[in-house]
Amino acid sequence: MWNSSAAGSLYISKEVKGVVEEEYSSRVIDGRSLAKKVEEEVKKGVEALKAERGITPGLATILVGEDPASKMYVRLKHKACERTGIHAEDHNLPASISQEELIAHIQQLNLRKDIHGILLQLPLPRHLNDKEAMLAIDPGKDADGFHPYNMGNLLIGNEGFVPCTPKGVIRAMEEHGIQIQGKHAVVVGHSNVVGKPMAAMLINRNATVSVCHVFTQDLKQYTLDADILVVGTGVKHLIKAEMVKEGVVVFDVGITEEDGKVYGDVDFENVIKKAALITPVPGGVGPMTISILMQHVLMAAKGTCKA
Amino acid sequence: MWNSSAAGSLYISKEVKGVVEEEYSSRVIDGRSLAKKVEEEVKKGVEALKAERGITPGLATILVGEDPASKMYVRLKHKACERTGIHAEDHNLPASISQEELIAHIQQLNLRKDIHGILLQLPLPRHLNDKEAMLAIDPGKDADGFHPYNMGNLLIGNEGFVPCTPKGVIRAMEEHGIQIQGKHAVVVGHSNVVGKPMAAMLINRNATVSVCHVFTQDLKQYTLDADILVVGTGVKHLIKAEMVKEGVVVFDVGITEEDGKVYGDVDFENVIKKAALITPVPGGVGPMTISILMQHVLMAAKGTCKA
Repeated sequence: MWNSSAAGSLYISKEVKGVVEEEYSSRVIDGRSLAKKVEEEVKKGVEALKAERGITPGLATILVGEDPASKMYVRLKHKACERTGIHAEDHNLPASISQEELIAHIQQLNLRKDIHGILLQLPLPRHLNDKEAMLAIDPGKDADGFHPYNMGNLLIGNEGFVPCTPKGVIRAMEEHGIQIQGKHAVVVGHSNVVGKPMAAMLINRNATVSVCHVFTQDLKQYTLDADILVVGTGVKHLIKAEMVKEGVVVFDVGITEEDGKVYGDVDFENVIKKAALITPVPGGVGPMTISILMQHVLMAAKGTCKA
Repeated sequence: MWNSSAAGSLYISKEVKGVVEEEYSSRVIDGRSLAKKVEEEVKKGVEALKAERGITPGLATILVGEDPASKMYVRLKHKACERTGIHAEDHNLPASISQEELIAHIQQLNLRKDIHGILLQLPLPRHLNDKEAMLAIDPGKDADGFHPYNMGNLLIGNEGFVPCTPKGVIRAMEEHGIQIQGKHAVVVGHSNVVGKPMAAMLINRNATVSVCHVFTQDLKQYTLDADILVVGTGVKHLIKAEMVKEGVVVFDVGITEEDGKVYGDVDFENVIKKAALITPVPGGVGPMTISILMQHVLMAAKGTCKA
């Protein structure tokens, strides 16, 4: 049971505790404790790399401007670096920076031997071109996995640096022994950050994959047949209990903030009654994403994931 | 009607003529005449490029060894170059060539200003690494669209050089005014050459996309619901009439040779009775693929598709 011990319960938010009845609690995928496990692995790998080869993995985050949400995300990543022993640098550039200056900055980081991962926090201020900036990142330092070169390798089944959120979902499936091959996986949302790379990873693992989104005519028809359901749309409680079948495994990648509270894309309180396993929001996919980012920086520093 | 004129009927193979009853003939997507249309466009583009900028598009094909099927495919591509005014070079390398020699050869072609497209005919002899060789091709000369950089741009919706067969299918849909957005498109087969890029293109165009393959547990469940069905498995007559719904649009990308005859993945003779539109084999998707390759070489020469 994920929260049977006092230590375990630390990782479950009050919101989740409040709504999950005791009989369903074993169905919750505890993203915080999985993330902790991944971070422990990374920490050991970092220590070994320092001891054996004298290399300290380094991550440079680039934040342009002062957007509060972006600042918070960058802070969370720096904290994870601290926990895992990764050297983290905060490159906070002024909102007034030009495209050329931003690219020159990225190119300098590409050349630095002590920086193994580069993370460009999005969104950028409107006058900057995020696609072009992303392209400037050395694919071998692309810890976020968004560079077309890495995305293409993902599509053809050579998964190296891949987007962290869907990789976190895959890791959670592995941890829970969920079979993917031959299962019907339904992905709701077709963004470049979640839906499309998630679909590619599931296809690479031989799931039958259906990709649904805002243009899908009868969403329920697909979700009702899903063995595995991954939802990333940003629509609060889009997925209701009557839209899933008994025994489904649900990953909720959505986040909606409303009146200081955070909601997922899944009506957790009711869907859990039919699900075999389900991630809460918060405390599910979010923490996993950051731990995978740490894993990528370690991979880059070890040179096991050359692009 | 596609074969109402003597000229039109030249493009329909005898096999197809034999089995298609007159009442169904308007349902056949005539790949040869569509390919001819695309080639005419390319030819005009090539003439304009020569006249306006003095540039003749150039394609170099690389064939390693003497595989008869590969030789035939290369020959077909050279003939298409002739028809469209593209300069074609046949680089037939000995089967004994080393990986280093092959890559050096590709790198020389990368540097040549008169060569805009490079096509490495697969499969390579066993002692050579095809993935590594493919990576050596300048993504900006990757007429086949298989380079990870181009595959990644495809996945994130920046379609430049993309695999020619699925692009031919999309063009055929456009020519026939087939709506993609909101439709349920089922792709059978998840190869890197057809299934996965096809799925990505359909997702980019807002279809609900299901990807099925050899691990799918109940194929019929998916195909029966398809508005658009693309099949590329190499399994002769995998798709029977009872597996599709009335009004489906079918693209058959499969080719099986048996006793000197060529078969598709779809039981054409029976499926056509339920289909709104369907491609035959031969004379369907195959000719389209080559015409798209010509389009890519022109795009590369014009510099409209820089990688």
